[in-house]
Amino acid sequence: MKAEMNEWIQKADVLIEALPYFRTFSGTTVVIKYGGQAMVSDALKRSVIMDIVLLRYVGINPILVHGGGADVTRLMNRLGKEAVFSEGLRVTDAETIEVVEMVLMGKVNKEIVSLVNQYGGKAVGISGKDADLIRARRRPPAGDAKCPVDLGFVGEIERVNPKVIHTLTCGGYIPVISSVGIGPKGESLNINADHVAGQLAASLKAEKLILLTDVEGIYADFTDPASLISALPKDRALAMIRAGQINQGMIPKVQACLTALEGGVGRTHIVDGRISHSLLLEIFTDQGIGTMVSAGP
Amino acid sequence: MKAEMNEWIQKADVLIEALPYFRTFSGTTVVIKYGGQAMVSDALKRSVIMDIVLLRYVGINPILVHGGGADVTRLMNRLGKEAVFSEGLRVTDAETIEVVEMVLMGKVNKEIVSLVNQYGGKAVGISGKDADLIRARRRPPAGDAKCPVDLGFVGEIERVNPKVIHTLTCGGYIPVISSVGIGPKGESLNINADHVAGQLAASLKAEKLILLTDVEGIYADFTDPASLISALPKDRALAMIRAGQINQGMIPKVQACLTALEGGVGRTHIVDGRISHSLLLEIFTDQGIGTMVSAGP
Amino acid sequence: MKAEMNEWIQKADVLIEALPYFRTFSGTTVVIKYGGQAMVSDALKRSVIMDIVLLRYVGINPILVHGGGADVTRLMNRLGKEAVFSEGLRVTDAETIEVVEMVLMGKVNKEIVSLVNQYGGKAVGISGKDADLIRARRRPPAGDAKCPVDLGFVGEIERVNPKVIHTLTCGGYIPVISSVGIGPKGESLNINADHVAGQLAASLKAEKLILLTDVEGIYADFTDPASLISALPKDRALAMIRAGQINQGMIPKVQACLTALEGGVGRTHIVDGRISHSLLLEIFTDQGIGTMVSAGP
Amino acid sequence: MKAEMNEWIQKADVLIEALPYFRTFSGTTVVIKYGGQAMVSDALKRSVIMDIVLLRYVGINPILVHGGGADVTRLMNRLGKEAVFSEGLRVTDAETIEVVEMVLMGKVNKEIVSLVNQYGGKAVGISGKDADLIRARRRPPAGDAKCPVDLGFVGEIERVNPKVIHTLTCGGYIPVISSVGIGPKGESLNINADHVAGQLAASLKAEKLILLTDVEGIYADFTDPASLISALPKDRALAMIRAGQINQGMIPKVQACLTALEGGVGRTHIVDGRISHSLLLEIFTDQGIGTMVSAGP
Amino acid sequence: MKAEMNEWIQKADVLIEALPYFRTFSGTTVVIKYGGQAMVSDALKRSVIMDIVLLRYVGINPILVHGGGADVTRLMNRLGKEAVFSEGLRVTDAETIEVVEMVLMGKVNKEIVSLVNQYGGKAVGISGKDADLIRARRRPPAGDAKCPVDLGFVGEIERVNPKVIHTLTCGGYIPVISSVGIGPKGESLNINADHVAGQLAASLKAEKLILLTDVEGIYADFTDPASLISALPKDRALAMIRAGQINQGMIPKVQACLTALEGGVGRTHIVDGRISHSLLLEIFTDQGIGTMVSAGP
Amino acid sequence: MKAEMNEWIQKADVLIEALPYFRTFSGTTVVIKYGGQAMVSDALKRSVIMDIVLLRYVGINPILVHGGGADVTRLMNRLGKEAVFSEGLRVTDAETIEVVEMVLMGKVNKEIVSLVNQYGGKAVGISGKDADLIRARRRPPAGDAKCPVDLGFVGEIERVNPKVIHTLTCGGYIPVISSVGIGPKGESLNINADHVAGQLAASLKAEKLILLTDVEGIYADFTDPASLISALPKDRALAMIRAGQINQGMIPKVQACLTALEGGVGRTHIVDGRISHSLLLEIFTDQGIGTMVSAGP
Repeated sequence: MKAEMNEWIQKADVLIEALPYFRTFSGTTVVIKYGGQAMVSDALKRSVIMDIVLLRYVGINPILVHGGGADVTRLMNRLGKEAVFSEGLRVTDAETIEVVEMVLMGKVNKEIVSLVNQYGGKAVGISGKDADLIRARRRPPAGDAKCPVDLGFVGEIERVNPKVIHTLTCGGYIPVISSVGIGPKGESLNINADHVAGQLAASLKAEKLILLTDVEGIYADFTDPASLISALPKDRALAMIRAGQINQGMIPKVQACLTALEGGVGRTHIVDGRISHSLLLEIFTDQGIGTMVSAGP
Repeated sequence: MKAEMNEWIQKADVLIEALPYFRTFSGTTVVIKYGGQAMVSDALKRSVIMDIVLLRYVGINPILVHGGGADVTRLMNRLGKEAVFSEGLRVTDAETIEVVEMVLMGKVNKEIVSLVNQYGGKAVGISGKDADLIRARRRPPAGDAKCPVDLGFVGEIERVNPKVIHTLTCGGYIPVISSVGIGPKGESLNINADHVAGQLAASLKAEKLILLTDVEGIYADFTDPASLISALPKDRALAMIRAGQINQGMIPKVQACLTALEGGVGRTHIVDGRISHSLLLEIFTDQGIGTMVSAGP
Repeated sequence: MKAEMNEWIQKADVLIEALPYFRTFSGTTVVIKYGGQAMVSDALKRSVIMDIVLLRYVGINPILVHGGGADVTRLMNRLGKEAVFSEGLRVTDAETIEVVEMVLMGKVNKEIVSLVNQYGGKAVGISGKDADLIRARRRPPAGDAKCPVDLGFVGEIERVNPKVIHTLTCGGYIPVISSVGIGPKGESLNINADHVAGQLAASLKAEKLILLTDVEGIYADFTDPASLISALPKDRALAMIRAGQINQGMIPKVQACLTALEGGVGRTHIVDGRISHSLLLEIFTDQGIGTMVSAGP
Repeated sequence: MKAEMNEWIQKADVLIEALPYFRTFSGTTVVIKYGGQAMVSDALKRSVIMDIVLLRYVGINPILVHGGGADVTRLMNRLGKEAVFSEGLRVTDAETIEVVEMVLMGKVNKEIVSLVNQYGGKAVGISGKDADLIRARRRPPAGDAKCPVDLGFVGEIERVNPKVIHTLTCGGYIPVISSVGIGPKGESLNINADHVAGQLAASLKAEKLILLTDVEGIYADFTDPASLISALPKDRALAMIRAGQINQGMIPKVQACLTALEGGVGRTHIVDGRISHSLLLEIFTDQGIGTMVSAGP
Repeated sequence: MKAEMNEWIQKADVLIEALPYFRTFSGTTVVIKYGGQAMVSDALKRSVIMDIVLLRYVGINPILVHGGGADVTRLMNRLGKEAVFSEGLRVTDAETIEVVEMVLMGKVNKEIVSLVNQYGGKAVGISGKDADLIRARRRPPAGDAKCPVDLGFVGEIERVNPKVIHTLTCGGYIPVISSVGIGPKGESLNINADHVAGQLAASLKAEKLILLTDVEGIYADFTDPASLISALPKDRALAMIRAGQINQGMIPKVQACLTALEGGVGRTHIVDGRISHSLLLEIFTDQGIGTMVSAGP
Repeated sequence: MKAEMNEWIQKADVLIEALPYFRTFSGTTVVIKYGGQAMVSDALKRSVIMDIVLLRYVGINPILVHGGGADVTRLMNRLGKEAVFSEGLRVTDAETIEVVEMVLMGKVNKEIVSLVNQYGGKAVGISGKDADLIRARRRPPAGDAKCPVDLGFVGEIERVNPKVIHTLTCGGYIPVISSVGIGPKGESLNINADHVAGQLAASLKAEKLILLTDVEGIYADFTDPASLISALPKDRALAMIRAGQINQGMIPKVQACLTALEGGVGRTHIVDGRISHSLLLEIFTDQGIGTMVSAGP
């Protein structure tokens, strides 16, 4: 009994340690790009979702954005269709966009919503088509100028209309958003989920943008794990992209951070989603984890 | 010019004729089950959607509920899976419910949302899993007692929690709802969309429930098109079901009407969705169309 | 039955044709100066009032302004008093202003209010004295400088205080306003109803000002009905007034349009009230009818 | 200076004496029937109006109801029409009701509104036709059964719809109401102003109903000024009416009190409007003035 | 670094463990009687205050009630006045009540307020005299009937008027309340702080009442620490009081629990304030700590 | 009876005379520094408190600020502690500030609150520590540079956070504020109450600041009572302070006025609290009383 009591008291001490962070972030909005291992492993999935529900209970407004690459490819394969990529971008024909949308909204989104609700949150899942949330245009063809490849139904964000997000958060809901936008003719367009998160954070004037990924953060030398950068000023980030020092998959994440920073977001973070409670660690410890991309030096 | 003017004046007269109906229904809620041909033919689709947008502009709150049988079967087939039915109910194994959910939320729902938005409404599409809208339990096995067939992920509604619907309609949105509910373990359950519409109408104390279908209404003798019944009191409806006079596909619709009536809904209608503007005709003409199922004689 | 149904469907098509206009004007304010034949003929009266009630039901805020010349003169005559005019303006002695106010508020205003309510709207009729709506000063004497004629209780608007209009429209009411203002000593002043409409439109930042009159609009040559002008830019309007090309009774209407445009009103229209549903035709057709006076060319 | 100061201090003492009454009545509604000498003499008029403005400033909601007999008769005469009465009720033909309405809304009502605004209140004047405030039916013919006289456009109240009163008082306005109601065909009906006040008080659940009149109150013996009754229980009032002890003009006032009491109004008063500040004396002194008609003994 | 990270992750796990309790208690009101050692030891003081601030950040409304016995006696002594007790109640003459009030409101209350604000809460400290919060009457003389002792300015609660509490909590404040009430003549009355907490909990329909004290809870045999009772049904509590099994100082606490339970409070707890984070342990562990007095068995 | 009636009518006339002032000040905020004789004499106390309650009933928001010098010294003496002053400022050691706070919050403040409530107002008393209302810093040592005296816990205002004042006035309460602020370490600091009043008036953008004192106002020559200044422009006030023409105790009052004027307060007044109803006389007479310190000449 005594021992149990002491253990409890230590736990209460931990809650109390978090108090200054509750004070700092209470009432703020945090946009979270959910993806990678954290969306695959059951344990990590639960960990992320519980972190998000906790954030809401302590007065923070989490907004979740997700993509769903692996599941898309899986269904494509089952349908006997091969995935084609051009310079890292999925070539998305009419059939593919249909699969993308079904997997994102009908599988991934609802799984997340269901988990959030199971852990005591109240989630509502929507896509960029609902309430005209994300207007997009076709992305120009990729490939070199001589031999461009039509990417099909791949979009770039034109305008975010965040009114529905406010309606939902004011109603007490946690919005969960699929990275599908609406094109000029009402067609669905596949949009990079990092970009969606960055633009949403900007249009919501979020306090933080957190992008979960499967590496520790950005490395000065991406072949050397010891070269992790804790704080990356905007100018250095741009220089590193130009110099080819940031690897392919990381580029949209860094771009999302820069978009958010330009839109007035306070802080942006690229965080290792393979660590359990990575969100809480980022928000509720002084050092944070991963790489913080910041406006100033 | 003169001729044109006269034509316009006649059109204005038509608007004015609708005025008494605007007065009567302004501020009320109408739950609409969208399905059948009206969801297949492009012209009918546009007609229904524009009717719904119009209803919203004249002060009525339309709530849309949809299923999506044909699209589900099509994707099942493409995946090399055969649809199995037991007494008219789809036997829904784990793989099937995944397909159902993807098709409903990721294809049908978003198509409807997109069309509504294109015609000037503001739609948000959700499923019964969002915001815990529809809690369901597994439906008991079908088949005769000796040889029951486990229907799998097929559900019956336990409880509707319409708070999110109010949040959305107050925010100016038209809710579009997929007929998927959430089971006791967080699993998705396939629910009859007519039943969803009936329960939602009841829990929202809707003014009207309108179920679109592919026949003119209920026939006294379903082999005789001349025997269409305009007004069907509840007691006669029950008697006809017991006597086997109402055909298989119509039964859940009649049940939905009865559920709604018990829940305090004013009027319930089974309407021919193959007629263009069937919704406006039902609401904005004195006689209405199709069969009205009513509480009293 | 079939025929009837087809007719209904055609009517529904007409409603649907109006949808884009509902979208455009929903939530906007339209100030309407009601007068002329449309206030005399019973059929036209009903047509205008029903148009107004319809506007309200489709989400537009109509504000009605009226004068009442003919009725005033009639009561004057019955009281054995002759109407005196100086340069088109009624010379208004103490007895006359009393008659004006009684006829406007006690007869014309309440008839309009009663009709609106009969057709399903909720009207409240007030004058410029209520809630200090229209503060006015005496209009300087008319006539040539040598021999000016004191116009008596005729006023010019000094300041419009539209708070009571907002209170009424927020409460769901259609305001009906008599063109009587309040002078510096609390006395009633007779004000040109076109001017009242123009100033109200300006102070409410209305979307549209529509002035009903008994001609088709403004003519380039007012002796030639074929010379009707559809769109009249502000500068040309001013030039035509200076050149004496706009006839006497039309001048205050054009002035009202100019006042409204300066105050930020989007569009101003002089419309033939002798056509039935002239308001709907102006608002709900692309070409509109009558003459639009506009800020730019 | 000293003397002046002392005088001021005595005045401040008077304000302070009123404090307990401010406490008691702050936030309550008082319906006042304004009529008689208090509407004729300029000094009394100002006194009543200032009392009303003061009530509003100390947190009480005054609602004014008025008739206008003398002015009506005067205009009738000027129009060469004779006033006809049957058992104390004005026989009101179509021409007469038009005159009544013009005089009430266009003259009396606006004069009151103007005075209130001049003394710092914010009044809005409406009739029973505005916002459907007072629905009435034709009063059955007067006269003995054998030889009934059709009273014409004279009405009895069917239903009061006080929503517009709430809209106005919430907006900070003092409603001033003419005793004209709306009949089943939209026609104007002349209604006894005492009755209007009584019904309004009942439907607003007013704290007090105060009827200004030209006598001190009700007399036990109306030939003997010394027999003034301070407090008249409902039962005795009924008995006195039955016994013919209450004179003709006083009967509708007593009826109004009884209607109000039945509707839950706290206290009802018949007060001498010839005394200056009669309203303040009634409300802000312990004894009150005039006759209080009360529910219990 | 790795080690540090693991430690953080364990801390995050602790936060997550608290999640189900956040869900359960979010939005509820908890009345806390603060006293004893927890108000003396600096470390315990900080622990209680931080617990309270944390409760507010996770969406719970804590209401603090305090007395201040020791400080009162200390000031009494410094003023050369001896404390007199009669049957455990302080005999409170005019001078004593002045000292009580000064110490409670001017010292104890403001120290608590200041600490709460220092740890990031927003406290406002009031007494039962502010906003007429606690109306009380003199407590009847204590002592045996033959020789009663006048207790002086000691009060019993007559009525709690919790409006000001709602005003403060809606404004985001944590109310801190001194146990002084207001007597019929406006005089201050010293009231038992446990009783104040119990009545406040009842009138606020609080979820929980927690009374901090300096023992572990209630003992079946108060000479035997091993006989601590975890759950004490109301009936047994009453029986134990009657049987003299509950010691003197504990009686008002048990009475406060019973008052609260009668008023509809969910759960009431007597908790050992000498344990750090006793509030969090009570609320955020399944077993709770101390003795729960409950309505049912 | 007649005589009594006439007296009443004269009293009503007095109420009516106040009407223009009610109009002018309705809805405004008036900060009142309460002190001196008006806080000592029972009759004056009642007079001030009733004035304040009256102000609230006629729609003005009074905010009361008080110090409490005499009571502090009295308790100090009873505790055998001598009051030490340096250049007119109380040297405030740790024991003294404790006494100050106890007397102000626990005695003076609650007495005022209790009186206001007794006369029908709803007061809530707080100090500058509640809700972080007044942040202060230690005042630099007084005395000449060579031999400074540490004043101890005496503070200067750094920042006023008036949110809690708005919460209270919106809830219908009259805030009563003790002049104690909170220092950087959470310690209590004794602040000049005139300064608190001036800063509060500035941060609330009050309409008026009124400082009650025990002289008639400011004298041109403070040895000559006939030299009372009615209106003192800011520049002359500064010049008089520099010239040593304003006596010691009056200086903080003049400074408070200047602070308020700089903060945008309309008018500031130094008023003789020994006159009964001095507040009403200042606000509700055209000349006012005492000295008005004004921004312009």
